[in-house]
Parts: sequence; structure tokens; C-alpha cells
Amino acid sequence: MLRARGSGRRPVMLAIAGDSAAGKTTLTRGLVQCLGADRMTAVCVDDYHRYDRRERAGKPFTALHPDCNHIDIMEQHLQLLSMGEPILKPVYDHATGELVRPELVQPRDFVIVEGLLPLHTRLARACFDITVYLDPPERLRHAWKVRRDCDKRGYTPEQVRAELERREPESAAYIRPQRRWADIVVRFAPVAGRSDPPGTPLSAELLLRPTIDHPELGTVIGDAEPGAGSGETAMHLRLHRDTDGRPVDALHVHGYVSPEESQVVKKAIWERLGAPTALAPDALGLYGDGETSDPLAITQLLLLYHLLDADRRQAA
Amino acid sequence: MLRARGSGRRPVMLAIAGDSAAGKTTLTRGLVQCLGADRMTAVCVDDYHRYDRRERAGKPFTALHPDCNHIDIMEQHLQLLSMGEPILKPVYDHATGELVRPELVQPRDFVIVEGLLPLHTRLARACFDITVYLDPPERLRHAWKVRRDCDKRGYTPEQVRAELERREPESAAYIRPQRRWADIVVRFAPVAGRSDPPGTPLSAELLLRPTIDHPELGTVIGDAEPGAGSGETAMHLRLHRDTDGRPVDALHVHGYVSPEESQVVKKAIWERLGAPTALAPDALGLYGDGETSDPLAITQLLLLYHLLDADRRQAA
Repeated sequence: MLRARGSGRRPVMLAIAGDSAAGKTTLTRGLVQCLGADRMTAVCVDDYHRYDRRERAGKPFTALHPDCNHIDIMEQHLQLLSMGEPILKPVYDHATGELVRPELVQPRDFVIVEGLLPLHTRLARACFDITVYLDPPERLRHAWKVRRDCDKRGYTPEQVRAELERREPESAAYIRPQRRWADIVVRFAPVAGRSDPPGTPLSAELLLRPTIDHPELGTVIGDAEPGAGSGETAMHLRLHRDTDGRPVDALHVHGYVSPEESQVVKKAIWERLGAPTALAPDALGLYGDGETSDPLAITQLLLLYHLLDADRRQAA
Repeated sequence: MLRARGSGRRPVMLAIAGDSAAGKTTLTRGLVQCLGADRMTAVCVDDYHRYDRRERAGKPFTALHPDCNHIDIMEQHLQLLSMGEPILKPVYDHATGELVRPELVQPRDFVIVEGLLPLHTRLARACFDITVYLDPPERLRHAWKVRRDCDKRGYTPEQVRAELERREPESAAYIRPQRRWADIVVRFAPVAGRSDPPGTPLSAELLLRPTIDHPELGTVIGDAEPGAGSGETAMHLRLHRDTDGRPVDALHVHGYVSPEESQVVKKAIWERLGAPTALAPDALGLYGDGETSDPLAITQLLLLYHLLDADRRQAA
């Protein structure tokens, strides 16, 4: 009964799940800028709060708990977007903690859905072509959250730390289990045992699960044998077992990768994108106040590959 | 992909369309009270404003214009409700003219959708089991609107009259054409040429179109021959041609109907309702500050008949 888009094509749907301050917005922003806001819609599903801040104060759970969110409406809206239908999305004002006037969201050719719980239910997961989980070390994420919530949301460091502690059981119960449902798990972190100069970008470890078809990169950067020492080259692809025992490819991009080495990989992925004339590659890898990171850029390029690949398959 | 309700049954959907202050809320309220809020959900689709009052001030149209409303989202939400799905409904605050926090609406067994434009599009109309258009004489509606907007919304009579004038072209273009799509057209008005004592309720003229199956009432109140003078009995059913030439049954219930005569008709409809044990008939016919009207009560009973009849057909 619901109408299809004029073109008859569904948007390509990408989920970026992760805990608070895990880097979802940074990853998303570069993709939107590279593809263009006229082709890509970004939606944050943390707006589906059932209670405002004042109401939440009296509740036995935090904003992370599924019962604290209109999960059924989130599922419904994800389905509608995946069918190319517009939604009237609720809006939560992080500055005031109030639920305010909803906004019309019209899905473009690509839709990124980022937030705390986009992969929580089976129905929600079924809406996505590509699923990503951002998995930084907790220590790092805590530091990011303290900095952001103090700078942008007016909290004190003590308040943020208390909130992180209060949220931990629900992070463990509801946020981190979503890692299991990701096609790609992204971990930005410093490399253990190295003392790189200040300003060296974080390294990226990308787990590439066989749930979607990844671009063939082994020929470009060379496979590292399982068991062979890692950390010897700045970039390598390695077959290993995930924490749950499932086999995965792990693509390591070290922060100290040389521009030349990273350029080879970027070029290799770029060539596999096909007809990328309308893309703005300069937007990739940007973070913070105009800093750049090759590991971030390569991560975004890989996601771009998957977005365009999914789009091509639908057109075929 | 969208889930069906647990019971697998769709709600029965009733539309009550009509211009501002046509009496939609009065008609709706008695039905909800009679059936019970646990079985019936009432939704006002005038909340789907695209602009708030301040934004509207700069626009070349009034709130009545389809372009001033999220008609596509209204259609989507009507479809979802008709499938038994919850919606996060936008909310327009008539007191402040602002769009505020949306509210979760869970469809019960019966859903009444009232407002300015519920029958504007084909897709919206397709969501309803029963459609009603409220069609009071314009002079009367203007008086009602002046009284309500001054009493409850803080306007002056001059402001309301100016607004009515400004809205007239859009009333003619978008509101009144919906009359064509109604299964039942309801007109409350005084009977021409009579001078009934003050406090006499308005009469009701109900056009019963053959688009749905009406209860057989001819045997109860007797048919009046087409062309035979009307107004001779306080209540009669008459075959005539609508303004567009289509044949309709017209049920006239005069405001001066005797309690005994109206009781016969009420009883006749009531008996056709089947298993009405859980109903609260005292809620029917109430308007204003505790006044009662037999023509209103009979109108509501007829709608109740159609609601329960549609529910029975679905269960069968």
C-alpha cells in the first residue's frame, strides 16, 4: 500500500552503531561531504527518546536502555526510509534535554543511520545494506566523551564520568552486543608499544566480516600470514579469529603509515569505486579542528566502496 | 515488512472531515465516550502543519492549504494506523501556534480521524471504512468559529472574521470538495420557516450514500415519497437527489422531535448494534455545557452502528 519512490529504487542504507562519543558523527560527516548532501541523508536515531531529560531523571534506566526509546517507531521509520519513503523524525535537543518539533527527512540515494541502538532489533537490522560498529577502547571513548560533553553540552568532567559509570551496565547489555551484527567493526586506537610523536593519527583496525563482499585488497597491500608478527608493516590484511571465534579479515592501517603507502591503498580502493567523478575526496579523513588522518580516510573510502557497490547491485 | 497487530485484526477507521468549527470534535467526543477510550483512539490530522504560526505569516496560503501540511506524512500515518501500527504523531499547539513534541498514538479497535483534510487524497481516503463530512450552513459555522476562537484561543471577533474571509478561497478549493467522498454527509441546521422556542436543538439532515450499507430504517420511521412535502413529520427518510444529481437517502431528524419519537428510532438502531453491553449510551447527544440533542444522539448512534458493523465484518 505504501508507495515506492518515483525511480522505483530503494536507497542504500548504512548503519553506524556505537556507544556515546565513539566517533560516529566524525565518520559520518566525511562520507556525507564526499558524496554530497544532495545524494546522502544522515539520520541520528538517538532522537527517538521516549522521555525528555526531566522525565528520565525519575526513571530506573538511562537513555541507552531500549525501554527509554521508541524502538518500535525507530524500526518503523527505518523501514520507511529503506523503502524510499519520507519520515517525520522526532528531534531531541541535546542542549536543553527537551523533545522538540519533529523534522521531515526525505531519503536520498544513500541513507546513513547512526546512533546508539540502530542494530538492536532484528527488524531494524533487516533494513540495512551495510552495518558498521565503532569499537574504540573504552578508555579512549571515555576521554572523548568527557571532552565533547564538557565543550559542547555544558557538563563538568565529574558529571560526565558519573554518567559513564551509571551507563556502563546498559552499555554492556545493549550497546556492545550490537558489535556482533556488524559487517565491519572499526577500532581506532593507538598502536600498543609504540611512542609515536604527538599529532600522529590513531591507527585503524577494521574487521571485515564475510557477511558482505569486500573489495579484494590482498594484492595491493599483501596478506600477512596468520601468526606472523603484526606491526611490522604500517598496513596489512590479516586473517584471524574474532573474539567470538568467527573467522574474519582484519585490515590494519597504522597511524604512522607513510603518505606514499596509504596513497597506494586509497588509489586501489578509489579505482574500484567506478565513475567517482562526482565525489569530493578531500572531505575524507578530516577530524577535530581540520586535522587529517589516513586511517580514517581509508576507513571512509572502504565504506564508500560498499555504498556505491550496493547502489550498483540495485541498479543492475 | 511492517508487522501486523498481535490479533491480526485491523482497526476500524472512521473519518470525520469538515471545515474549521464545523462540529467535528463534538461529534467525535460522544463516540469516544460511548465506546470507551480503551477501545477507541481519536486522532486530529490538523496537527500535520508544515509551518508554525510565525512561519505561516509569510506564506501566500492559510493552514487549510494542502501545501501548508505534511499531506504525505498524514497519508503514511493513516496507512500505518489502518494496519494497526503505532505512529509518532506531530502536535500543533493551538494556544501558542508552535509545533511541539510529538506523541505516540497506539490504534485501538476503532480509530476516529477528524480534521480539515482527511479525505483530500485518494490514498488517505483508501484508509477508511467509513467517511463522514460535516456540512453545516456557512453562516452557522462562522458563528461557531467566532465563539470558539474568541473563548478558547484568545482572538477577537474581528480577527476571526478576517481569517474566515482569508480562508474562504481555500475552503472552497480544498475543504468543501471532500463532501463528495463522504459515505455520510451531516448537516446540523435550524429548520427553515419555523420559530422553535430557544434551546431547541438544531435539526440534523443525514445524507446516506449507497457507498456503504446503512441500517434499514424505513420500516421504523416510514419512507416519505420523493416530492412529498418534508417538514411535516419530525423525522423521516426520503429518497432524493444530491446537489450533484446522485441519488441518496436523506434522514431528517428535526430538533423539535418528541422524546417518544426519537426513542423509537434510537431503540431501532440500538437493537441493530448487537451486544452493546459495554457501551455508555448516556454520552450520546451531549454538546456545549451539558446540553443534549436528540438529532446529535441519533447521528452518533448511526455512526456507532457503522463502526460495530465494520468490526463484525472484519471478524467474520
